[in-house]
Amino acid sequence: MRTAVVIGTGLIGTSAALALAGRGVTVHLVDHDPAQARTAAALGAGTDEPAEGVVDLAIVAVPPAYVAGTLADAMRRGIARGYLDVASVKGGPRRELEALGLDLTAYIGTHPMSGRERSGPLAATADLFEGRPWVLTPTRDADTEVLNQALELVALCRAVPVVMDADAHDRAVALVSHMPHLVSGLVAARLEHAEESAVRLCGQGIRDVTRIAGSDPGMWIDILSANPGPVADLLTEVAGDLEETVRALRSLESADLDKRRDGAAGIETVLRRGNAGQVRVPGKHGSAPKAYEAVVVMISDQPGELARIFADAGRAGVNIEDVRIEHATGQQAGLVQLMVEPAAAPALGAALRERGWSIRQ
Amino acid sequence: MRTAVVIGTGLIGTSAALALAGRGVTVHLVDHDPAQARTAAALGAGTDEPAEGVVDLAIVAVPPAYVAGTLADAMRRGIARGYLDVASVKGGPRRELEALGLDLTAYIGTHPMSGRERSGPLAATADLFEGRPWVLTPTRDADTEVLNQALELVALCRAVPVVMDADAHDRAVALVSHMPHLVSGLVAARLEHAEESAVRLCGQGIRDVTRIAGSDPGMWIDILSANPGPVADLLTEVAGDLEETVRALRSLESADLDKRRDGAAGIETVLRRGNAGQVRVPGKHGSAPKAYEAVVVMISDQPGELARIFADAGRAGVNIEDVRIEHATGQQAGLVQLMVEPAAAPALGAALRERGWSIRQ
Repeated sequence: MRTAVVIGTGLIGTSAALALAGRGVTVHLVDHDPAQARTAAALGAGTDEPAEGVVDLAIVAVPPAYVAGTLADAMRRGIARGYLDVASVKGGPRRELEALGLDLTAYIGTHPMSGRERSGPLAATADLFEGRPWVLTPTRDADTEVLNQALELVALCRAVPVVMDADAHDRAVALVSHMPHLVSGLVAARLEHAEESAVRLCGQGIRDVTRIAGSDPGMWIDILSANPGPVADLLTEVAGDLEETVRALRSLESADLDKRRDGAAGIETVLRRGNAGQVRVPGKHGSAPKAYEAVVVMISDQPGELARIFADAGRAGVNIEDVRIEHATGQQAGLVQLMVEPAAAPALGAALRERGWSIRQ
Repeated sequence: MRTAVVIGTGLIGTSAALALAGRGVTVHLVDHDPAQARTAAALGAGTDEPAEGVVDLAIVAVPPAYVAGTLADAMRRGIARGYLDVASVKGGPRRELEALGLDLTAYIGTHPMSGRERSGPLAATADLFEGRPWVLTPTRDADTEVLNQALELVALCRAVPVVMDADAHDRAVALVSHMPHLVSGLVAARLEHAEESAVRLCGQGIRDVTRIAGSDPGMWIDILSANPGPVADLLTEVAGDLEETVRALRSLESADLDKRRDGAAGIETVLRRGNAGQVRVPGKHGSAPKAYEAVVVMISDQPGELARIFADAGRAGVNIEDVRIEHATGQQAGLVQLMVEPAAAPALGAALRERGWSIRQ
């Protein structure tokens, strides 16, 4: 690939353009707001001058609702040999394009599984896609040439290509992203009018469950509007399980011992199904999560405390797999959980203790 | 306080005993399994010899279902001047005790908001309660003397006392702990039979939402069995919101523009209520979470990498407020998010870049 046009210079478009430009591809930047394209060009993502002649690849990076129209326009003008979009839903845009009667052999719908809290070209970075899955949804009619262009783009962005059917993709992202996002919001919503004394008791559990509920609604309305069916189907399944859970809890309130036993059995089923699903969530390197062991260290709230811990841990030659910092309510001190391979935990604990750290047994 | 009896030498009982023993209190350890009490004694939590005469405080640390029976027995034998329990629910045990016709002036129900993934005396630690809320639920009739003993215990354990009504406590923990736990499990359960290709697309969002779904069901059946009413009430409210969310998503599937607008408005309401609740979750120091800025650094999967980053960050004099490590799918490299005060982010980024780190812009 030697030339590309990126249409839509937001976070994803500009990041892809930066990756391509950084690897020698001539990138032409287009946006409905010319100032955005200029900004992207100033960041080194390419030029906002129009391309002369037909480019190798056109990358459409606009919100889901504008994908089909933008692609149709580009295809009719014949600006590129291959076309792809990077929107977070794939079935709807595909059907819209089909309804427009376009020849789609030169088109592949794709979705890089990357995102940030921030948006726009200034949030873009050439390494946004590094190591992340990038879903490709070629139809049977798709040109091998275009598929190879898409694979080259993914490789240049150092992402991991994953080939899926468009509708299977939409159901998958409904499952692993859209449904959890809404449910996180439903849990958080219960805190909106809660008493302060109750909210004070929040711990790490609810903090984790509700973290993504803090996201900006604007982009999420776009995403959910483009994938309402699969998300509604999943939420209906959740609602069914929820109803059974409430029924089990009500049985636990009963004076009747048999009913209480049934209730406990129902709750156990719910919890065990949660266990079975949770172990499937990939952790490090995309595999099932390993059982790391936590070495818990007390720290004060001073600059350099973490630096000292990590320096001391480094001297012990231990690879720290994950870190959690817990700050205690109303206290200046905090706890740092260093997640390590179980075999490495005793050595790390001993090394840190030797250097004067207070380690939780 | 000079003498105490701890009845139930699991995680909580042994941890409290360790804290008291470490501060000079003579602690007598009792368990229905004498081997457990012996283990706790061997850890330095006190003695498993019975007390001679009446002790200052009896701490009942048994599962919720056994609290009332155990307390009633201890009170009838008159083993202590004050009595408290540390179970995770407070209303039910209180009502059971009242039904037994006991004089409860010498009793206070309490709940330290601490826990670990592991249980039993070997998981216990004297600092388990440090900086955590410890809820006290004295009735109006409670002896001031006993309240002061409870406050002394909390102080010796370096926890933060929070006084609440017993039923308000149970509703609060249903809200901030029990309900989120079940909902996390309901989200995770949807992955149980999901296709591998879908599960591969999991990112940090669903990882956080489902983390607590990995907990051991045994203890959670006990907890939920002791607090079914408030949890069922909250889940019913969640179910109502869920139904409205599904309705909004179905409207978004409509061909009718007005209906789609209504649907989008409905989804926006859900998301904004989630935002409003999420900001109330206390972050550091129990206050509303501050908007930290993430400085994102690429690292390789080698021991000492984190040590080097934190040492370099420490030299820049920046206090790192939180850390997240992301490991990319199928890659050995990872990204470390250093959360810092927004004002400190540029300096940290510059300092790390100067030392050769690759920083995401």
